[in-house]
Amino acid sequence: MTTEQYPSKLLERAVSECAKLPGIGRRTALRLVLHLLGQSSETVHALADSLVRLRDDVKYCKWCHNISDTEECEICANPLRDHSQICVVENVRGVLSIENTGQFHGVYHVLGGVISPVDGVGPADLELESLVERVKAGGVTEVILALNPTMDGDTTVFYIQRRLAGVPVRLSVLSRGVSVGDELEFTDEVTLGRSIADRKQLN
Amino acid sequence: MTTEQYPSKLLERAVSECAKLPGIGRRTALRLVLHLLGQSSETVHALADSLVRLRDDVKYCKWCHNISDTEECEICANPLRDHSQICVVENVRGVLSIENTGQFHGVYHVLGGVISPVDGVGPADLELESLVERVKAGGVTEVILALNPTMDGDTTVFYIQRRLAGVPVRLSVLSRGVSVGDELEFTDEVTLGRSIADRKQLN
Repeated sequence: MTTEQYPSKLLERAVSECAKLPGIGRRTALRLVLHLLGQSSETVHALADSLVRLRDDVKYCKWCHNISDTEECEICANPLRDHSQICVVENVRGVLSIENTGQFHGVYHVLGGVISPVDGVGPADLELESLVERVKAGGVTEVILALNPTMDGDTTVFYIQRRLAGVPVRLSVLSRGVSVGDELEFTDEVTLGRSIADRKQLN
Repeated sequence: MTTEQYPSKLLERAVSECAKLPGIGRRTALRLVLHLLGQSSETVHALADSLVRLRDDVKYCKWCHNISDTEECEICANPLRDHSQICVVENVRGVLSIENTGQFHGVYHVLGGVISPVDGVGPADLELESLVERVKAGGVTEVILALNPTMDGDTTVFYIQRRLAGVPVRLSVLSRGVSVGDELEFTDEVTLGRSIADRKQLN
């Protein structure tokens, strides 16, 4: 189904646009588009409008750079949050994941990605300078680096560590180890090795 | 990630709209939406516009009811196609699949679905009356029923067969049997049984 001739240019165009989305091939795009064709005009307009409105009207919090409807996001504006603890995440999904645990009551800093030499993403492409400024401005006691455990994530952690050297702030990363509920025999050896090296004393 | 609080109403709305699409959960919807947020405004407008334009401006061929940009689709308008052979399909995907084989040179009739008592789809909801009229109008020598081999597909075949009883036209269905390149041990027994009963003589 690669070079197939669609019976309509409108159909062809809609399928091509949808197939640009990550993880959506032309076959899935056709299925989605034909589904929309069977929906009411209002439904399709609502979908289209929601995407355009989000893209054009969304704001980013002036403090943490998380997606927000206002200049200052709800978390940063909340006086009950501990503003001395900053959790550094890659993107809004990081914020959502950590908020979901209910274990963190501080504020965030959204980098907008991680340093990736392969993808051509350097420190200047991310909200790293604003993080350093925010920490140096004072009032921050701990910076928790909650980046994905990948090589790019580790590079970014290393960069931040170097940039904050000498600044009197506690720097921490998420603990790595065996997943809760996981079986040891199915845990990869790097993680298992790490969990032995980082073992926690009980008594 | 079911009851999570998005940091923005615009984001929440875009995710909710995308999650209405078949096979797209909220997690995938969030991934798609965040991807779009990283694209240029033009890209997002192009996607939104292509969906709205398709939904609002698409036409259906007055003869075969396939999706078309014009009153008469390219296949029906093509004098080189054999207008005495009508291939009946469920939807545009059926047309694309059969066109892809390069084995059919007649014209189509798109029903817009199949009779499904479970889903509340009756003959009046489909382009069945127009098919009967088209065949009775004359000039048609064969009607090939290329519906999906499901119970609803079979019900629809049976309905068409009854409605065309007495009309001097050849009625045929796609042959069913072992897939080309498939191994017998992995073919389900109903299909294998059918392929023995419908065996083809070679000499």
